[in-house]
Amino acid sequence: MQTVSLAEIKNARVVLENTVRKTDVINGSVNDLCDCSVYLKLENLQRTGAFKVRGAYNKIYSLTPEQRGKGVIASSAGNHAQGVALAASIFDIKSTIVMPETAPLSKITATQKYGGDVILHGSVYDDCYVKAVEIQNATGGIFIHPFDDPHIIAGQGTIALEVLEQIPDADVIIAPVGGGGLISGIALAAKSINPKIKIIAVESSNAPSMKKSVEENKPTSLKSAATIADGIAVKTPGTLTYKIVSQYVDEFITVDEDEIAKAILMLLERFKLVSEGAGAVSFAAVLSGKVKMPGKKVVAIISGGNIDVNVLSRIVDKGLAKAGRKTELTTTILDKPGRLQNMLKVISDMGANIVEVYHNRISMEAELGCARVDLVLETQDNKHLEELLAELHSKGYKVDRL
Amino acid sequence: MQTVSLAEIKNARVVLENTVRKTDVINGSVNDLCDCSVYLKLENLQRTGAFKVRGAYNKIYSLTPEQRGKGVIASSAGNHAQGVALAASIFDIKSTIVMPETAPLSKITATQKYGGDVILHGSVYDDCYVKAVEIQNATGGIFIHPFDDPHIIAGQGTIALEVLEQIPDADVIIAPVGGGGLISGIALAAKSINPKIKIIAVESSNAPSMKKSVEENKPTSLKSAATIADGIAVKTPGTLTYKIVSQYVDEFITVDEDEIAKAILMLLERFKLVSEGAGAVSFAAVLSGKVKMPGKKVVAIISGGNIDVNVLSRIVDKGLAKAGRKTELTTTILDKPGRLQNMLKVISDMGANIVEVYHNRISMEAELGCARVDLVLETQDNKHLEELLAELHSKGYKVDRL
Repeated sequence: MQTVSLAEIKNARVVLENTVRKTDVINGSVNDLCDCSVYLKLENLQRTGAFKVRGAYNKIYSLTPEQRGKGVIASSAGNHAQGVALAASIFDIKSTIVMPETAPLSKITATQKYGGDVILHGSVYDDCYVKAVEIQNATGGIFIHPFDDPHIIAGQGTIALEVLEQIPDADVIIAPVGGGGLISGIALAAKSINPKIKIIAVESSNAPSMKKSVEENKPTSLKSAATIADGIAVKTPGTLTYKIVSQYVDEFITVDEDEIAKAILMLLERFKLVSEGAGAVSFAAVLSGKVKMPGKKVVAIISGGNIDVNVLSRIVDKGLAKAGRKTELTTTILDKPGRLQNMLKVISDMGANIVEVYHNRISMEAELGCARVDLVLETQDNKHLEELLAELHSKGYKVDRL
Repeated sequence: MQTVSLAEIKNARVVLENTVRKTDVINGSVNDLCDCSVYLKLENLQRTGAFKVRGAYNKIYSLTPEQRGKGVIASSAGNHAQGVALAASIFDIKSTIVMPETAPLSKITATQKYGGDVILHGSVYDDCYVKAVEIQNATGGIFIHPFDDPHIIAGQGTIALEVLEQIPDADVIIAPVGGGGLISGIALAAKSINPKIKIIAVESSNAPSMKKSVEENKPTSLKSAATIADGIAVKTPGTLTYKIVSQYVDEFITVDEDEIAKAILMLLERFKLVSEGAGAVSFAAVLSGKVKMPGKKVVAIISGGNIDVNVLSRIVDKGLAKAGRKTELTTTILDKPGRLQNMLKVISDMGANIVEVYHNRISMEAELGCARVDLVLETQDNKHLEELLAELHSKGYKVDRL
């Protein structure tokens, strides 16, 4: 097939029935932050931690036994790698996954655990792609495209069938866009069933290639696409996906890095869910106030949760700092008994929590007879932090934020 | 009612129907680590981030309008606080929650957001309890016990009714034990429906008060109960819960702090779920190999996800360090151009990832003409780390782990 129809998506659902999870939809409303009913479709809890296994399995299923026998090949640093590796393992066929040498160890290990033969090559996706084509030519294996393929799109579209069963009166579906496989399948399925439903596509403002393509009426490339939402950092969208998106998507929203980080932190803290950057952009669009749908039922697709735990730690730290909840301060005090305690008392009297104290007598920056004190503090919010700083100043402490 | 029966639990289910989430059960098998089929019941995705709202709502529902009119009181530093606050808000009645002054700001704020009037008092739970009784005497409000109450137990028991619908052929249910409210309700419901099902109770090895009570044939107190699983750090179990547990629980398992931390990290990384210490102990029991049920279907209750994000960050860091995936090293090199690059090349050639480099010329610990270098590295596992250290030694670098 060269195009995709609702029938193919319904067929994909049957194909996937015993392989993928029908992921849950939970209430994700944040009454204090937005005026619509928000639901989260938890594809981060999908097998492999992302929706990609749906398309990959549906694609490999469509191959003939002869084609499967030669194995499948993919180039990806992320979720597609794991999806193809798992799907191939289920069919008991060989998968070769070309990943950049710079890929995080956690993603390499995960792909290997799902049964993929990982080849590290080059430093960017394009290098991997060249290598994958080389392997394809040498082995006759089938290259599994990450998005621009009707079977891939049909597989991802099964998410919309589930959503419309789970929230039959949904008014809006919001989904992330990289190459466009996910949104194409979802938009096509949802609009075919309910033409009144609204489909919103979300991109990182650092990589809005689909938005740009639609504005210019043809698939258009960006020069760069660097974002913490690495799963949708795509410079050129697909040709088929562009066509479907142009026809079915109602609105494009972009979210910046801070908005994405804030959404990741909120999903973690309030909803107990790990999401990767790309997985959080739909929710970021809601949180940022850019989805204006008062009183409507809005389903945000949380597309994946494969974020490196170290990156997650950094996002948490930055998010807490930005919200005025965690602060590093430095000050100089007289190096005499009791002086440190005095200052710490001012802080705890203000209801702040002292996480770390670093007291340094021999710092180059402190005058003789003085000591430098670095502090890590927890406060409630920026207002609380400002009050604390004012109190310290009024008590004669010269305090700087690090 | 002074006892609890299946009928009361079924009744609680009707009471809770439109208030609590029927949380999802997902496959939590880790083929490389255990030989049973594991399912995770996601009460960390319950409203308020923990199961406690079930019992709290069922209890407040049982009160007369007059009783409700006087408001409810609870003393808790954790999930019970949020559960009571939310349940009271739904009934539009006043809730007063006494929390220790040392409670994390995030928990205080969350309780207030759910509508609770928070009073900070004392530094430990016992102080809070005394204050709560004082308020009860003054206002006539109803004190909501966190576990030793038939309506609370019946509310928590609804989890078992859901589990047996979701996994009808479950062989084992594993649940955490603190005061015993959760396990009492679950064991009573599950055994009443299917007497062949096995119920395993898990405690922190730092706070095994229920295990000790059963061994001594009466509710017995511990002297201390300090654990990262703060939700089950209970010194004395309930009287009613002790009775039910004695009758229905088949086996007790304890898990230590490292096992709990490892389970939290695995739930976060592989299953994209945030769990608190108490929420992770059931899964820790499986991961540690202490649940010996080859080929059986085992349901682990992930009871809550309310962990402070800063604590979570520290657990992640420690877990990665223990697994040989993140290491801090220190070394001294000659302070000459190119020397630092040479060492970094050895590291990257070994496939390790350099996260941070701190190069210090003026360290007190480095001899003149030398510089101290602190490194944060990512490696695949302990074996990879040992290989890297051996390679550095063989190239003449004296390296110490921090």
